[in-house]
Amino acid sequence: MDVKKPASQENLNGDESESQISHLALDIGGSLIKVVYFLRSNGSGGSVDDSGKKSDPVLEGRLHFAKFETSKINDCLEFIRSKNLHLAGFRHHDASASDKTLIKATGGGAYKFADLIKEKLGVVLDKEDEMDCLVTGANFLLKAVHQEAFTYVDGQKEFVQIDQNDLYPYLLVNIGSGVSMIKVDGDGKFERISGTSVGGGTFWGLGRLLTNCKSFDELLELSHQGNNRVIDMLVGDIYGGSEYSKIGLTSTNIASSFGKAISDNKELKDYKPEDVARSLLRMISNNIGQISYLNALRFGLKRIFFAGFFIRGHAYTMDTISVAVSFWSKGDAKAMFLRHEGFLGALGAFVSYENHGLGGLKTHQSVQQFAVSKTYAGKKICCLVNEDLNDNESIDFGVAFAA
Amino acid sequence: MDVKKPASQENLNGDESESQISHLALDIGGSLIKVVYFLRSNGSGGSVDDSGKKSDPVLEGRLHFAKFETSKINDCLEFIRSKNLHLAGFRHHDASASDKTLIKATGGGAYKFADLIKEKLGVVLDKEDEMDCLVTGANFLLKAVHQEAFTYVDGQKEFVQIDQNDLYPYLLVNIGSGVSMIKVDGDGKFERISGTSVGGGTFWGLGRLLTNCKSFDELLELSHQGNNRVIDMLVGDIYGGSEYSKIGLTSTNIASSFGKAISDNKELKDYKPEDVARSLLRMISNNIGQISYLNALRFGLKRIFFAGFFIRGHAYTMDTISVAVSFWSKGDAKAMFLRHEGFLGALGAFVSYENHGLGGLKTHQSVQQFAVSKTYAGKKICCLVNEDLNDNESIDFGVAFAA
Repeated sequence: MDVKKPASQENLNGDESESQISHLALDIGGSLIKVVYFLRSNGSGGSVDDSGKKSDPVLEGRLHFAKFETSKINDCLEFIRSKNLHLAGFRHHDASASDKTLIKATGGGAYKFADLIKEKLGVVLDKEDEMDCLVTGANFLLKAVHQEAFTYVDGQKEFVQIDQNDLYPYLLVNIGSGVSMIKVDGDGKFERISGTSVGGGTFWGLGRLLTNCKSFDELLELSHQGNNRVIDMLVGDIYGGSEYSKIGLTSTNIASSFGKAISDNKELKDYKPEDVARSLLRMISNNIGQISYLNALRFGLKRIFFAGFFIRGHAYTMDTISVAVSFWSKGDAKAMFLRHEGFLGALGAFVSYENHGLGGLKTHQSVQQFAVSKTYAGKKICCLVNEDLNDNESIDFGVAFAA
Repeated sequence: MDVKKPASQENLNGDESESQISHLALDIGGSLIKVVYFLRSNGSGGSVDDSGKKSDPVLEGRLHFAKFETSKINDCLEFIRSKNLHLAGFRHHDASASDKTLIKATGGGAYKFADLIKEKLGVVLDKEDEMDCLVTGANFLLKAVHQEAFTYVDGQKEFVQIDQNDLYPYLLVNIGSGVSMIKVDGDGKFERISGTSVGGGTFWGLGRLLTNCKSFDELLELSHQGNNRVIDMLVGDIYGGSEYSKIGLTSTNIASSFGKAISDNKELKDYKPEDVARSLLRMISNNIGQISYLNALRFGLKRIFFAGFFIRGHAYTMDTISVAVSFWSKGDAKAMFLRHEGFLGALGAFVSYENHGLGGLKTHQSVQQFAVSKTYAGKKICCLVNEDLNDNESIDFGVAFAA
């Protein structure tokens, strides 16, 4: 694609001088659309570095995150229109799409819904590779955002200090509708080594059929209240309460997920939806943890980061994945999670604006007003720690222009 | 256990001279009880080898296989009683169970139902380790039974010639209620390296909740008629019909099992049970194939044998497992199946009678009347090819006494 010049459109705050800044990126998955957009704070502009020399102008503001069900894409498009987010793309002049505004997008839906979005918003989606964006997004979060990665053990969240010189290689497990497992060796250096079709779409799809829940979050909440032992066949159920210690199985290990549903004369309606939801969540989380560990082992990867919207900071999900990784690795490996887990692809698409010669996003190492400023060298963006750690819906953010 | 002397009970055919032969072994799993029993042909006795020298006496007959749902254990015990199979065990004289007839048994239910069986049949279960029995049974089948192992590719069953000198190591994947993955290095040399709770009990348990099928076989039959694309989210569903060739995914690859069940306004009753059954079977078969391959890879195992009652010679199940192993190994590995897949544990328990000093089972390499006679050296049993390859319910069998 031959990108000729940035679109000169008004910024959201009415300041037309920094019109090159792109404000919106989309990740349109099978189940969910993830939206990342940047809103400037009032009055942000240039800054002064230590030497007193005026540095590149800096836009301060917040990166905002939003999500919509893919089946409700019209709600998403209406949201974008209502905030005028679609006006802040860029333009190029190739023959097929002259003078159209381009918006960065990734995920399979960037192909599927391209025509719909063009019709409704009058913008062309500039498609970025899905795996590329996941990796770019993960690297961005791990390098630029303070207190992004954490472990979850025995109900305790513990933030992990990432040494940026010792980050690679790692395994990125993105749990969307399906699951992708990506070996990341550096910025833009990665390989999708595995995956599984048993992912978030399975939890939500099977869960919906089994419980009639109306939303993914309702199903997660339900699972929180359930007891999986009602439906799962435990080792002790088979061995009459005993364990099978010779091969390392205790009586409470699950021998067969949903295995008890065979031996009763019960039907679906005789089980509590919360117990069904719990068994389902445990089955899927455990399975993902196991396959992830086996792939990490295969390539000698010490760190496994789990992301994607399946997790949603849900304690039981993280706990099960952590336990699975610990169980199968005999304690050698630890699962890690990301605070902005669901937005890797959308963040990666957002960051990719700078690859198109817009010059809008630049590393800014001397932004003194930032409480914590980490440099994300590869992608020329710097951003702030979000002080409210419970608010994962936005990140304080600074963007510097190229000189 | 101190085994003093064999029980001197009548054989089934009324010939009391070979009373040491044990006729019955049980494998009591979480879902199914597998029964192996030996019935002599009339008139079997000694044989003459090439040199004209009379060899050890040989009992000819058939090994028979039967199965019962564990929840219907009373039917199983009635079956055993009706055939007087329980009278053909052995006895020992330790303090706690003096003069009781012992029957070889394995599986968790050998612990759980020991008291019930003692009460109903008056016999004591002599428990053998479950993994030991699976391995012994697999080695027995692979070494002693002609045309036991086969591949299943594009709907074609192809028997595999096993070079007994190049059998080890291999991966044995036993799919019962749960799944055990065992690295086998020789007779009695093995390690359970992995497993998954997503197995036959999951298929049958979840399948029962979702379809109201009344039996496992009905559910399998139903899956045969279904179309998984109705409920599974394919790569093409996400990408608007396109593939994602960059990472090796075609438009018909399953991105998310049951993933389409999220995006519709449909409930369970709006889906055909056969489509649900097909998606479920494919999800579980594919998952087992993937985890098996990853474990084979980890230990450099070239051969993966799939067994256990989940498979039941079902074409679509074998096809999905084969495709999964081929897909994830990029063609490097091949799934293999066993004709007597469901009876490994019970066969292992049966073979274990010889470990207790009964001297009843002995290698017999010169049994000329056998059309094909393979020696199962480690376990001192020889047996015949079963000429009717579609009849997996019994194996022609010869047993030779120790001199």
